Amino acid sequence: MSNAFPHRHLLGIEGLSADDIRIILDEAEQWVEFNRRPRKQDGRLVGLTQINAFFENSTRTLFSFEIAGKRLGAQVANFHAAASSVKKGESLIDTALTLNAMRPDVLIIRHEANGAAADVADVMDCPVINAGDGRGEHPTQALLDALTLRRRFGRIEGLKIAICGDIRHSRVAGSNMRSLPLLGAEVRLVGPVALLPDSIPAGISTFTDFEEGIAGTDVVMMLRIQRERMEEALSASLGDYHSFYGLTRERLDRLAPNAAVMHPGPMNRGVEIDGDIADDPKRSLIQEQVEMGVAVRMACLDIFTRSARS
Amino acid sequence: MSNAFPHRHLLGIEGLSADDIRIILDEAEQWVEFNRRPRKQDGRLVGLTQINAFFENSTRTLFSFEIAGKRLGAQVANFHAAASSVKKGESLIDTALTLNAMRPDVLIIRHEANGAAADVADVMDCPVINAGDGRGEHPTQALLDALTLRRRFGRIEGLKIAICGDIRHSRVAGSNMRSLPLLGAEVRLVGPVALLPDSIPAGISTFTDFEEGIAGTDVVMMLRIQRERMEEALSASLGDYHSFYGLTRERLDRLAPNAAVMHPGPMNRGVEIDGDIADDPKRSLIQEQVEMGVAVRMACLDIFTRSARS
Amino acid sequence: MSNAFPHRHLLGIEGLSADDIRIILDEAEQWVEFNRRPRKQDGRLVGLTQINAFFENSTRTLFSFEIAGKRLGAQVANFHAAASSVKKGESLIDTALTLNAMRPDVLIIRHEANGAAADVADVMDCPVINAGDGRGEHPTQALLDALTLRRRFGRIEGLKIAICGDIRHSRVAGSNMRSLPLLGAEVRLVGPVALLPDSIPAGISTFTDFEEGIAGTDVVMMLRIQRERMEEALSASLGDYHSFYGLTRERLDRLAPNAAVMHPGPMNRGVEIDGDIADDPKRSLIQEQVEMGVAVRMACLDIFTRSARS
Repeated sequence: MSNAFPHRHLLGIEGLSADDIRIILDEAEQWVEFNRRPRKQDGRLVGLTQINAFFENSTRTLFSFEIAGKRLGAQVANFHAAASSVKKGESLIDTALTLNAMRPDVLIIRHEANGAAADVADVMDCPVINAGDGRGEHPTQALLDALTLRRRFGRIEGLKIAICGDIRHSRVAGSNMRSLPLLGAEVRLVGPVALLPDSIPAGISTFTDFEEGIAGTDVVMMLRIQRERMEEALSASLGDYHSFYGLTRERLDRLAPNAAVMHPGPMNRGVEIDGDIADDPKRSLIQEQVEMGVAVRMACLDIFTRSARS
Repeated sequence: MSNAFPHRHLLGIEGLSADDIRIILDEAEQWVEFNRRPRKQDGRLVGLTQINAFFENSTRTLFSFEIAGKRLGAQVANFHAAASSVKKGESLIDTALTLNAMRPDVLIIRHEANGAAADVADVMDCPVINAGDGRGEHPTQALLDALTLRRRFGRIEGLKIAICGDIRHSRVAGSNMRSLPLLGAEVRLVGPVALLPDSIPAGISTFTDFEEGIAGTDVVMMLRIQRERMEEALSASLGDYHSFYGLTRERLDRLAPNAAVMHPGPMNRGVEIDGDIADDPKRSLIQEQVEMGVAVRMACLDIFTRSARS
Repeated sequence: MSNAFPHRHLLGIEGLSADDIRIILDEAEQWVEFNRRPRKQDGRLVGLTQINAFFENSTRTLFSFEIAGKRLGAQVANFHAAASSVKKGESLIDTALTLNAMRPDVLIIRHEANGAAADVADVMDCPVINAGDGRGEHPTQALLDALTLRRRFGRIEGLKIAICGDIRHSRVAGSNMRSLPLLGAEVRLVGPVALLPDSIPAGISTFTDFEEGIAGTDVVMMLRIQRERMEEALSASLGDYHSFYGLTRERLDRLAPNAAVMHPGPMNRGVEIDGDIADDPKRSLIQEQVEMGVAVRMACLDIFTRSARS
């Protein structure tokens, strides 16, 4: 079975097949149950060194990977790039070579440059998991979103999903735009023209009218909007953005009857999403996304280190 | 016995009975001995995730909790709030909900707002231990102070204890003002009017004259004075403060014969306390306070996770 | 044998005998092999608390010690001094006393002041390992350099080694100037007058002409040059420095036929060393230095805690 997972690194959803994704999601299910136990200590990564090399602040994702690794017994070491040689002008590749010489068994990387994870993977002797690179990919986010959806709806195939907001600058959208169609969902991108991507994959529709874009969808994935982006790209204020693209209770009525709302966090309550929607247990999958994140990362750590371990 | 410890969270000394405190101190004694061994590894928290969420810098307290958790076998993960989503404007409660979704078994929180620990406890599924909130409480500091005193004097009942300095802004004082009278000590607050609290609990006396306040006491608890507080509240310099409220060798003569000196650290030597007093092994309990800190925190981690574990 | 290692602390190469160094290198060899295994978990430091107290940023060295300790089973806790009481004006010795009261079993210290490690060792009950103090020593760097050389050449005795660049401000040079002659190497210091040390140990020659200094050597140890140093001490630009003291392919021809190149990192490619030399597997020992670093630190952690453990 997945002893023979056909990829050495997890650099993005691109390159994965629907079956690859299903293997990861299937394996993640066991960790969801595991993490709900009072004691959650597995030993399969004992003696393996997991380096979390985060060149951008991302406490949530870093923390999720750290907890995932510790629950599997790994030696987890966080490389705080902000305080590192990188500040002294060392190149990313020299830093990667240094880390590689310490003989890690898996490297998790977050970096602000597109393609950074692939560049680093080229020089590492161990598997590399991309925890977000530039505006490129954030594959474990797409995997946790898929797991969350599959558990909520029992399937992903046939779901109508609107990804809304600053799609152009979002690696979360970048990975979900690849994984969701692959798994059979119908994906729409909804946002102001300036925040839509330049090239749209075939089969994905775009909407600049928010209410039209979300009409009849089963899932609305809201993205975080950054203040600077609004001012630069939109010449808009927070209030303007909310009136055009904020998810309100009123607008929820346009969705399919049992529709769900997702957000990768951190949220701007009252900007892209109203607080009461985020807190509505019937609608919001936001906390379940976080929970699935740990499970998915445990599955990835396990799967991608498996061949080296055995 | 303490299988049935009657509190889910440790938010403050307020709400604890004298018996509750004695149970914690009694259990902490074993960890004092344990920590003096060459090998100090217990397994009772194996498989439990301990999150240290520090929204304010406090390396000493954080470090004490981190070492305590590791000696009990917990998966300890430090959430560095300064580098986190909090900076991106996420609310404390949203951060807490995110951490909660990762299924921790105990959360240690330090925050600059009064009541933050209680607010967070409301949304967490696991026990919460307050490691200091605003000017509110810092219960493990009061517990370690009580353990230190009990070991030094064999009892707390009947001790005359002067808490001296910036009491108004001190959560250390806030917790000790509650615990020490409960355990039978006679407590005096000593400091300039501007640094005394607005409301004084019944049975506690106040003094603005330092020498009068400490006269005949068994214990002087010096608090750290912050330069900004002196300038704002007192229009005083460091030297002024020392001449009125600094603990000097000369002033020590006013205390009871075997009196002891405490300080929660970090100290300003030569401001609120003279260096030679801090270093006097007959007088100073300062390092023993730190040692008791680890033991008390081990006891708290053990006690507050006990019901969930079994 | 090394049960009776005759030093309590590792404060510098100064004070070590050639035999002491050989014991550490011999023991490090086993960890080189150990670290190349898929699973690398030893239990000899289980139950021991290792504190890494870094008062200066040094992610590489910190990380190396952290991974070393975790692979030996220690409870590793990183004390981030930048966020600590130190900022609040606490003295180094008070911080050390606080850490000591937490009953660590080994303390690793990096500090910007010469002699800081020795000062701290004076007040600690546990062994102290100096991870770099001011312009003083960085003994584990010299040990890893020695191990790297011994593995490359089969011996250190008789090697001609040029240490090049900013020797005056370099603790790496400070330690290597002591260890390499002790092990029988012939050491030359090569750099601009302003960056040579004031006093030169007997038996070590100095050169201000780079090409003359490296002529016929078996090893060139390049040191990192800091931009500020160039501007202050040399009134030179990066380009000037490279033209006079940069290691280029052309200059490599002056070395002995099988000569090797070392650099403690992080490198300034194109300043003190050309990138293609750093990347040349026949010449460059740079990544092996990093690998040996973890092994040497494991040996040091093991050796220096051995008597307390047993």
